[in-house]
Amino acid sequence: MRYARVSAGGRAMWGRVGESEVELLSGSPIEGDPQVVGSVRRDTAVWLPPVVPPVFYAVGFNYPRHIEHAGAAVPDRPEAGYRANNALTGHLSPIVRPADVEGRFEAEPELVAVVGRTLRHATREEAAEAVFGWTIGNDVSARTWQHQDRSFWRSKNSDTFKPMGPWIETDVDALAQRTTLRVNGAERASFPTGDMVFDPFDHLVEISRYITLSPGDVLWMGAESTCGIEPGDTVEVEISGIGVLSNPVHLEGNHHS
Amino acid sequence: MRYARVSAGGRAMWGRVGESEVELLSGSPIEGDPQVVGSVRRDTAVWLPPVVPPVFYAVGFNYPRHIEHAGAAVPDRPEAGYRANNALTGHLSPIVRPADVEGRFEAEPELVAVVGRTLRHATREEAAEAVFGWTIGNDVSARTWQHQDRSFWRSKNSDTFKPMGPWIETDVDALAQRTTLRVNGAERASFPTGDMVFDPFDHLVEISRYITLSPGDVLWMGAESTCGIEPGDTVEVEISGIGVLSNPVHLEGNHHS
Repeated sequence: MRYARVSAGGRAMWGRVGESEVELLSGSPIEGDPQVVGSVRRDTAVWLPPVVPPVFYAVGFNYPRHIEHAGAAVPDRPEAGYRANNALTGHLSPIVRPADVEGRFEAEPELVAVVGRTLRHATREEAAEAVFGWTIGNDVSARTWQHQDRSFWRSKNSDTFKPMGPWIETDVDALAQRTTLRVNGAERASFPTGDMVFDPFDHLVEISRYITLSPGDVLWMGAESTCGIEPGDTVEVEISGIGVLSNPVHLEGNHHS
Repeated sequence: MRYARVSAGGRAMWGRVGESEVELLSGSPIEGDPQVVGSVRRDTAVWLPPVVPPVFYAVGFNYPRHIEHAGAAVPDRPEAGYRANNALTGHLSPIVRPADVEGRFEAEPELVAVVGRTLRHATREEAAEAVFGWTIGNDVSARTWQHQDRSFWRSKNSDTFKPMGPWIETDVDALAQRTTLRVNGAERASFPTGDMVFDPFDHLVEISRYITLSPGDVLWMGAESTCGIEPGDTVEVEISGIGVLSNPVHLEGNHHS
């Protein structure tokens, strides 16, 4: 099943995504069993981030080739950081590059696990059962700020820097898929989604040793490869079996770029 | 006015804090004008974190003596990081030290600004007007993890590591107050609350250059001094004109400590 959040009549609503329509739901499918209350056409739907997480976890170095390329040490245990909800935006909404960004401005194509149950001191089996479904994230990053700032506050969390979507797919073997990054239709990266140092279940087990994970929490899994993006580009992240997350890139203050 | 969130009949409710009672409110006073719908006795109230923020900002080095003591460079611009909502707990609830914490386990007494309006590209005056009120935070930190981990995920964000409260005070000149840290009634630190390198309005202006701040967002302002705490202790953070945030310290797995 594919679950999304769409804007309908000015309201954010959950929906179940079909071939040509998105059936609108009375509530969240993560914690309840909502009823169908209407529908919108899929081809004109306004896609929102498929969930607004209570806590937004993100893994940094997690793909061996990315770690090697960065000259970093291979992590000896799972460790996540945080991103911020203000930065979330939906499928087809613009990534807005702030006017004063300098240097490399990059897309990072990532698998996202969506937590469906409360987890604490979880086993690996409990962690696997607690994943509600999978979506796609683009961890847009301004590298000069990333290197010069003490935290990732603006380098990775400026408004619109975290496209997520288009929907949550509940029926997919996410780690057996392929992640592909395209800019203006040209492939810029492609790698096995599951080729990770520590997989999502390893991370959920480790986090849950100290932290209560809650329904709706998301865990972004890092990327093997990245590429530069510019205002005027359209960037797509595809994960086979899940879908395609597509966003145009705009320049702040220039709504026609 | 003092606004709190309390547990009433198993539900989290907003309240207005009086001398002997907490008047229960129909909704959030941050965005609306709620009605009084009941009351609970103040001396038996179950205090929750006074707000669950959309985004939880925290400033690190922000007091000159703390920076000097740490041998760090004085920041040349305001810069915040993030904490996570799972770690929040209310006034009088226990801080639970995980069983495997080693080394220094410390309390950091902090002023907290609560944002009341949407802010983007704000002036200093707009930022000041956008603060709904002020509360108190204790940025509990496990120093060994803080130094050995890549992020602050468990060192500062394990469950219960972020006591906040007891309430939001809307009528106080927060930067003219004094912050005092006590353990088991003995004073362990005391400093002028407003003796900061960059004040809350400086930070809100800077954040808002790239980020939309939302009603309910919180900004923790850092501490000048810290002190060690142990299971069995009771730790109090007082900010004059706001109140006292008090929490017992427990050891994980030992509910009688």
